[in-house]
Amino acid sequence: MRREIVAAANRLFYQRGYNQTSFSDIAQAAGIPRGNFYYYFKSKDDILGAVIDARIEGIRAMLAAWDAAEPDPRLRLKRFGQVILGSEKDLVRYGCPMGSLNIELGKAQPALKAKAKKMFDLFIDWLTRQLAALGHANAARLAMEVMGRAQGVAVMTQVYGDREFLHAQLAAFDAWVESLPG
Amino acid sequence: MRREIVAAANRLFYQRGYNQTSFSDIAQAAGIPRGNFYYYFKSKDDILGAVIDARIEGIRAMLAAWDAAEPDPRLRLKRFGQVILGSEKDLVRYGCPMGSLNIELGKAQPALKAKAKKMFDLFIDWLTRQLAALGHANAARLAMEVMGRAQGVAVMTQVYGDREFLHAQLAAFDAWVESLPG
Repeated sequence: MRREIVAAANRLFYQRGYNQTSFSDIAQAAGIPRGNFYYYFKSKDDILGAVIDARIEGIRAMLAAWDAAEPDPRLRLKRFGQVILGSEKDLVRYGCPMGSLNIELGKAQPALKAKAKKMFDLFIDWLTRQLAALGHANAARLAMEVMGRAQGVAVMTQVYGDREFLHAQLAAFDAWVESLPG
Repeated sequence: MRREIVAAANRLFYQRGYNQTSFSDIAQAAGIPRGNFYYYFKSKDDILGAVIDARIEGIRAMLAAWDAAEPDPRLRLKRFGQVILGSEKDLVRYGCPMGSLNIELGKAQPALKAKAKKMFDLFIDWLTRQLAALGHANAARLAMEVMGRAQGVAVMTQVYGDREFLHAQLAAFDAWVESLPG
């Protein structure tokens, strides 16, 4: 039951935005009467906390799977690019789930945004490790740059719905990864 | 009176987000009774239309001023980078006014988002002209890339509040502009 609520909220927060999703929207989407609902969550902020925890769990598992599958940091970095392609259709419509949530909450909800930022931290740490493994002295800064590029591509893809642009940018990312020394 | 309403709405839409700003919030911020308000605007969507028109007017005037002040497209492009520095404090807190509005509206309000997208179009057209003047065959694609980079830097700046990163990225942009052939 809790799992259904979190899954429904996760989808709605992504597709409509956090503030555009009401408690009732979530109850309805999860098919659970609002009354039962309060047993699991006292507030929408609590649900957001659970949604972010679930997303973080998912990101952690994904990054661990990449690390396990590929010993070469370059191939791991390429997977980072490829994961964007897997969610291309959603990206065009709803933007980056992580970026758009942080941008929304960053404006006027600093406590919630601090939670959402943890998703970024996971990727930045992971990217830093891959780039450091390739011998980059300033891997942390480069990781910020890579993440920034990915976020920029996500924004442009949502604004223009231009999949050709997305594909060209991902091909350029792969070429850049190939060119990395180390 | 209309001008005060639009200015107050512009500020609130940026600082809180469009959907987090109510009709009453705008009336209060503008210091105008809600009743008088309806004389100028029938709905919040109408106010958004006026806010976007005002922003477009501002962007147009800014780009025209750059064109008039600098005959060299490279120096014009540098102004594009510098304008971000001028709004650094707001960027850290509220993100890019243009990007964040498009991301918010893109999720579930396609008609409003189509209006907001026009701000991007203005910059893309202008960037394309500067890059074409420098002799780039695929200036339109490169303009999308430049805009994407800027948006990515804006997202990371809002997420991490890291001004050093912002400054380093802008310095890298200037160096890239210097290196452009043409």
